[in-house]
Amino acid sequence: MEEWEQYFLRNPAPQGFNASCDRLKKFCRQHAGHHPIALVTSGGTTVPLERNTVRFVDNFSAGTRGAASTEYFLAQGYAVIFLHREKSVVPFFRHLNPSFLLNSLQENSEGGLQLLPQYSSQVYPIWKNYQRIMSEERLLFLTFTSLSDYLWLLRATTQYLQQLAPSSLLYLAAAVSDFYIPQDQMAEHKIQSASGPLTVTLQLVPKMLSPLVSLWGPDLFVASFKLETDSEKLIEKAAGALKRYKHKLVIGNLLQTRREEVTLVAEEQSHVVKLTQQQQQEGVEIEKFIVEEVCACHKKFT
Amino acid sequence: MEEWEQYFLRNPAPQGFNASCDRLKKFCRQHAGHHPIALVTSGGTTVPLERNTVRFVDNFSAGTRGAASTEYFLAQGYAVIFLHREKSVVPFFRHLNPSFLLNSLQENSEGGLQLLPQYSSQVYPIWKNYQRIMSEERLLFLTFTSLSDYLWLLRATTQYLQQLAPSSLLYLAAAVSDFYIPQDQMAEHKIQSASGPLTVTLQLVPKMLSPLVSLWGPDLFVASFKLETDSEKLIEKAAGALKRYKHKLVIGNLLQTRREEVTLVAEEQSHVVKLTQQQQQEGVEIEKFIVEEVCACHKKFT
Repeated sequence: MEEWEQYFLRNPAPQGFNASCDRLKKFCRQHAGHHPIALVTSGGTTVPLERNTVRFVDNFSAGTRGAASTEYFLAQGYAVIFLHREKSVVPFFRHLNPSFLLNSLQENSEGGLQLLPQYSSQVYPIWKNYQRIMSEERLLFLTFTSLSDYLWLLRATTQYLQQLAPSSLLYLAAAVSDFYIPQDQMAEHKIQSASGPLTVTLQLVPKMLSPLVSLWGPDLFVASFKLETDSEKLIEKAAGALKRYKHKLVIGNLLQTRREEVTLVAEEQSHVVKLTQQQQQEGVEIEKFIVEEVCACHKKFT
Repeated sequence: MEEWEQYFLRNPAPQGFNASCDRLKKFCRQHAGHHPIALVTSGGTTVPLERNTVRFVDNFSAGTRGAASTEYFLAQGYAVIFLHREKSVVPFFRHLNPSFLLNSLQENSEGGLQLLPQYSSQVYPIWKNYQRIMSEERLLFLTFTSLSDYLWLLRATTQYLQQLAPSSLLYLAAAVSDFYIPQDQMAEHKIQSASGPLTVTLQLVPKMLSPLVSLWGPDLFVASFKLETDSEKLIEKAAGALKRYKHKLVIGNLLQTRREEVTLVAEEQSHVVKLTQQQQQEGVEIEKFIVEEVCACHKKFT
């Protein structure tokens, strides 16, 4: 048995998994032949250290890249499955910070609450766009927290989208843990600090891109991300991933500069997408250009 | 040198620390003699595994307890310093989920946006209460992410509040890591998965309650929380903490039942606070009763 099969055998499906599959199925059926579908994964995955989980290892990711990219895929006419970490950044809502609502309201003459004019004009285009997308039912929200929840939902979604290949694509922007503790090696209860320093041994997570590309979605257009902190390793690692998994595109980025520069690595060529100083000042998001390039590649592919 | 002193020597103050201290000082001055002040800490702390941090160990805590308790301290007439994990649950805003705003608006006759009537009546009392508290400047927001940021801000706040003892109190609801990796033992860059399983050794964090109670705020009323997953350990651990640190109150709770039951452990007695079935159905929050008891104890103390 392959390592990835063992992983799924040992880690049970998340709560509500069947209901999520029903929503996926319905969404795919609805858009088949009408819109290309993009799966966008977003946010970090958690890896519990205890079965009754108080502590866990997490991956740095607010989810900004996935949330922003989702808006640009929608703008390109895609229907989007937004598979994201619970509480991570969400398309549309991300433009409104949590204190916004309570600070931007005033009473109107009928005793109701309305947005202050200066906020109203700011929110209006976002609200209008959101209303349109929701009325077209072009955005499906699915959430995960742990690595295992994520992998179960990733496999299921890929398998549904494979049925709509080649007109659907995967855009794997989630920050997925490389390490985990198998259930049977996990402490049952909260680890006690009285016993001194804590040594934790984390096992390697099987490389899921491998069965994803070869078995679950062999006819899909797959773009994955590679995040590093060391610029000397980045391109080598990105090219290595492409060679190993044989998918279409690796988008390499450095933690330190990820908002203004990425490198798109494809089989035949690689090139840098970089915001100019002026674009940065104007608040242009690099995800706009990344998504436009991915959509162009996807068009060629189909 | 004590272990806790070494910790502060080895881990630098967070960015913006001086500005936070200025805000604290101003807040304390403003309320001295007018309102008792409560410091409420809330949310989990992170412990980085790498200096250029991609991975970190986190503690389970959405921050609901601290956010809810803050509202009840405000209702009891306290001014509150809400020291919370960035992106954790926030008082008042917590009643509005992030999708709320975009789903609850409609255009009004002047082309502005207003809340739909059914939402307006729901938001009105929260908004009104929030406006009152903010106009009285009775709520100060301070944020942290890492363990080290938290500890620096905790020490500073305690020292300021000590000057207002005994009329201020500490309510330590944050889920603080017991373990960390010292800077000089941390990997510089993202740990590579190619090298196989990962063994991480975490050191014990010095017990900060000890200098907090004996040195930083010796005349303050201090209530701390103890979260366990094993009911057999809970009361023993809570009583042990009280005996060890000699503060006023430990609030013991189990991960599994923390929303409906806690045990207040004081030097002379301990008793259980538990929501009835009916209270749970009506959405009564246990924090209301916890805070009422803490305030009563604090009154006796002063």
